[in-house]
Amino acid sequence: MPEPIRAPRGATRTAKGWPQEAALRMLMNNLDPDVAERPEDLVVYGGTGRAARDWPSYHAIVRELGELADDETLLVQSGRPVGVFRTHEWAPRVLLANSNLVGDWATWPEFRRLEKLGLTMYGQMTAGSWIYIGTQGILQGTYETFAAVAAKRFGGSLAGTLTLTAGCGGMGGAQPLAVTMNGGVCLIVDVDPARLERRVRTRYLDRVASSLEEAVTLALAAKRERRAVSIGVVGNAAAVFPELLRRGVEIDIVTDQTSAHDPLSYVPLGSPTGLSPEEHTERARASMAAHVEAMVGFLDAGAEVFDYGNSIRGEARLGGFTRAFDFPGFVPAYIRPLFCEGKGPFRWAALSGDPADIAATDRAVLELFPENESLARWIRLAGERVAFQGLPARICWLGYGERDVAGVRFNEMVASGELSAPVVIGRDHLDCGSVASPYRETEAMRDGSDAIADWPLLNALLNTASGASWVSLHHGGGVGIGRSLHAGQVCVADGSALAGEKIRRVLTNDPGMGVIRHVDAGYPEAAEVASAHGVTIPMAAS
Amino acid sequence: MPEPIRAPRGATRTAKGWPQEAALRMLMNNLDPDVAERPEDLVVYGGTGRAARDWPSYHAIVRELGELADDETLLVQSGRPVGVFRTHEWAPRVLLANSNLVGDWATWPEFRRLEKLGLTMYGQMTAGSWIYIGTQGILQGTYETFAAVAAKRFGGSLAGTLTLTAGCGGMGGAQPLAVTMNGGVCLIVDVDPARLERRVRTRYLDRVASSLEEAVTLALAAKRERRAVSIGVVGNAAAVFPELLRRGVEIDIVTDQTSAHDPLSYVPLGSPTGLSPEEHTERARASMAAHVEAMVGFLDAGAEVFDYGNSIRGEARLGGFTRAFDFPGFVPAYIRPLFCEGKGPFRWAALSGDPADIAATDRAVLELFPENESLARWIRLAGERVAFQGLPARICWLGYGERDVAGVRFNEMVASGELSAPVVIGRDHLDCGSVASPYRETEAMRDGSDAIADWPLLNALLNTASGASWVSLHHGGGVGIGRSLHAGQVCVADGSALAGEKIRRVLTNDPGMGVIRHVDAGYPEAAEVASAHGVTIPMAAS
Ligand SMILES: NC(=O)c1ccc[n+]([C@@H]2O[C@H](COP(=O)([O-])OP(=O)(O)OC[C@H]3O[C@@H](n4cnc5c(N)ncnc54)[C@H](O)[C@@H]3O)[C@@H](O)[C@H]2O)c1
Ligand SMILES: NC(=O)c1ccc[n+]([C@@H]2O[C@H](COP(=O)([O-])OP(=O)(O)OC[C@H]3O[C@@H](n4cnc5c(N)ncnc54)[C@H](O)[C@@H]3O)[C@@H](O)[C@H]2O)c1
Repeated sequence: MPEPIRAPRGATRTAKGWPQEAALRMLMNNLDPDVAERPEDLVVYGGTGRAARDWPSYHAIVRELGELADDETLLVQSGRPVGVFRTHEWAPRVLLANSNLVGDWATWPEFRRLEKLGLTMYGQMTAGSWIYIGTQGILQGTYETFAAVAAKRFGGSLAGTLTLTAGCGGMGGAQPLAVTMNGGVCLIVDVDPARLERRVRTRYLDRVASSLEEAVTLALAAKRERRAVSIGVVGNAAAVFPELLRRGVEIDIVTDQTSAHDPLSYVPLGSPTGLSPEEHTERARASMAAHVEAMVGFLDAGAEVFDYGNSIRGEARLGGFTRAFDFPGFVPAYIRPLFCEGKGPFRWAALSGDPADIAATDRAVLELFPENESLARWIRLAGERVAFQGLPARICWLGYGERDVAGVRFNEMVASGELSAPVVIGRDHLDCGSVASPYRETEAMRDGSDAIADWPLLNALLNTASGASWVSLHHGGGVGIGRSLHAGQVCVADGSALAGEKIRRVLTNDPGMGVIRHVDAGYPEAAEVASAHGVTIPMAAS
Repeated sequence: MPEPIRAPRGATRTAKGWPQEAALRMLMNNLDPDVAERPEDLVVYGGTGRAARDWPSYHAIVRELGELADDETLLVQSGRPVGVFRTHEWAPRVLLANSNLVGDWATWPEFRRLEKLGLTMYGQMTAGSWIYIGTQGILQGTYETFAAVAAKRFGGSLAGTLTLTAGCGGMGGAQPLAVTMNGGVCLIVDVDPARLERRVRTRYLDRVASSLEEAVTLALAAKRERRAVSIGVVGNAAAVFPELLRRGVEIDIVTDQTSAHDPLSYVPLGSPTGLSPEEHTERARASMAAHVEAMVGFLDAGAEVFDYGNSIRGEARLGGFTRAFDFPGFVPAYIRPLFCEGKGPFRWAALSGDPADIAATDRAVLELFPENESLARWIRLAGERVAFQGLPARICWLGYGERDVAGVRFNEMVASGELSAPVVIGRDHLDCGSVASPYRETEAMRDGSDAIADWPLLNALLNTASGASWVSLHHGGGVGIGRSLHAGQVCVADGSALAGEKIRRVLTNDPGMGVIRHVDAGYPEAAEVASAHGVTIPMAAS
């Protein structure tokens, strides 16, 4: 990499149309040092999630986007530009397929072998599809999960509740702020004091207690007084969780985001140094068994308990604890009801580079959905607490019948000059109707259709047919090779009437896929949404 | 099924537009008893390749197509209609995804479990995508393949050669006629006498011998006298092939089209009744090992031996025969040079139902490509020998720069009244740029990219973005679950200017994918075609 990449800002474009210009800027923004984890290697986030296969590919994509006509489409195959074809003005300007392998070859060793040959790259979810916007995405997803816990058990707010969790790392560090944004008290355990201190510095965590006694005293006082406070405590969760259970501390919600998915990253009880990988794994699994046994103890005592996507239940079972799966994963427990409404991680970025544009869209969202309290709380708190990385951006969860309204409004704001330049509107691949992932988004589907992968493919085809500006189809994402297929779309609001028509269709049809996917799987909540909004379900009429 | 299904004929439609009407008729035509293998089970061809998941799904699709507006799109998930969304007039009217599973779950047992739960169906290649036209489709490809064998080894003709093969079903039944059309003698083995008798009735097979002795005597006499004759014999290939090898019968060419891709469809040696699926699979694989061992025996004896795309080598290896991959697949051996030119199985059907329309298009093709001798030979022979099944149809292999010319001409012929009703133009999923299938279409790619599955996904997305009338994305097809991903497209020539614009783009871009896929894999033949025709290759310019 010659010099740091930074997307151009402002209302003047060099590409032939705004969709092309937007793709160019978002590709560059994904590789902005303020956004990407290792821009020099083209790695955006999530291990090795890349924005382009290699530097020659990156430069060729930039060149092609700069020359692409309004009726042409660029094809990108695992981060490498492979063709340009004449299409039409309703067609996407870019179509991307990343990391896809034929089923029998869909393994990490085969993927790595092909990657080494220069034939593919890992696209993660939003790295290879040019719509990653930094850690705000994680914070919002965590906020949304705790909001759903609040809605399910605590009357819509976590005020007066105490959440116990562990793991204050890259992902898990969003938990204390997400809990306090929902009005609750959070007690978070981490073996590594540095992780806790770092989150205090970034204002994700309010303070670190000097002992477990102090932590419990502070937490219970805040809970009693219904103050939103987060408290870190240094310790091993496999010791601290059972101790808190034994003491009978009144804990309302229990989860965990230690790095349990990889037993070599989980710190076992006792002295963990000088162990062979096998010894470490065995000790870690035994510790996770104790850790999860305490979580089930809290469950038995009436707490809300869930697995936060780190596989700790599976590891604890391997460690000998048979009741590990007594509590659910977070998707079936909290996220699926949202998916049934077509809700998912809607996001947008201001191509102007001007934070005032995001502030204006924040206000517009608050005006459009005045009845949605948790949305309003998020937008207000995000405005205060979230530092932008790269182009200013916002994320919030919106559902069927909401995303199109917001998108069309943003396009009008570009047309009217309320926004100083066009806006891109996209989403994570983790969404209601865009992914097949039996260990996460489609775990424990009601009809057993967890592994059916037709849905993300239909989602990509439908978004292509509806007017999206770029569409992506990836394999692997957050759960790894062989375990998921997922699709993404991005629309560009450039203020034109055509953009408005495209946005209306894409932002209706895309969440609509989530509604029909869950209707088809037998979720009555989704059927209600479909009939309330007049979504056509052919087999319902049969 | 209440009564046999037959597509409506003629120039009057009941659907709101010709693309919808065409989808309706082609779905019905796929299930016409003259076309489908087991219409009562919705099975079109290729083991269990279905046109719809079940009868309620079929009727709902028919109803939805009848009501679908010119700016709406119907989604079909493994043969079941799951949604209708508002798109635009350039968008496909139908998008289909069939049999797709997440990689780690892409196995036959898991597929069957989900199929039993009613959650999926097997779409094969053109069954679930409504563009199967009977055995002519494979006849043409088989004719081309044997012509290539003749050119490679036997001086351009099969006269005086004996070909041994097995499997006289929906696809395999084309082999005897393809061999005799090339002047050779064909001995074809099938366990099911009814399959052989059926091919005698349709003039694809000349006769059925009453014993293996008689068959061999007849075949060797014909070979000696250089007469083109095809002879069927009833028997299990896993017994007959080794027996012929043991007898030292002078066989020049050996291949196979039993339904080996699905071990439950392959009849094992011994009594195959009353077996559990697991027992059947094990026995079938052991039989395939014996079958393929004999094929390798013929190879060692100097014969031209190839796998004809049914995965029998993979199954035989699973059955314990280690030399199964000693002979090549037919694609790298004979077809890939055609793929580099964007050549593939172009096909069309007359919605009028009038054979005169196909005769007119035959003449048009001969006029458009007067310099192509082998094409002219095929068109003439097909006119004489091919009995239409269902709607009259024609197939021929055309390349980049040819398909669009033919398609646009057909559309003009509809507009001018030279044809009495619209024509559908599609292709097999087995095409130059539409499939990832390491045991067949992408076996032994020059750069090792056999298992990279981005290409069929990009193909489906690009056809969706170019104006196809329906687009499909399937898993499994002719080689089975876990082994391939492939895409299809169909365009409708209704004589309108819009149809002409769409056809021009789709029939340029679709074979264009074949050209760029092979340029990217390093085939100089493809790079020559790209530069001769001005296909944009971004990385070539870097
Ligand atoms: N829910 C989701 O959608 C989702 C998304 C991404 C990641 N994850 C999973 O969440 C987990 C955390 O991800 P991350 O990026 O924060 O990981 P990370 O490695 O950055 O952080 C893990 C933290 O756990 C701490 N830890 C390890 N063992 C401990 C123990 N015994 N007691 C207390 N603390 C301990 C470490 O000190 C570290 O701070 C991973 O397993 C990841 O796969 C879930
Ligand atoms: N080369 C290609 O391009 C291509 C295209 C499509 C399909 N195929 C593959 O070719 C195969 C045949 O397809 P099809 O549509 O004809 O299938 P089919 O099911 O219609 O016919 C298979 C035939 O094999 C016979 N058979 C089964 N086991 C046998 C045995 N042990 N010995 C002798 N005969 C046996 C059956 O009786 C049947 O007639 C499939 O595996 C299919 O996937 C190849």
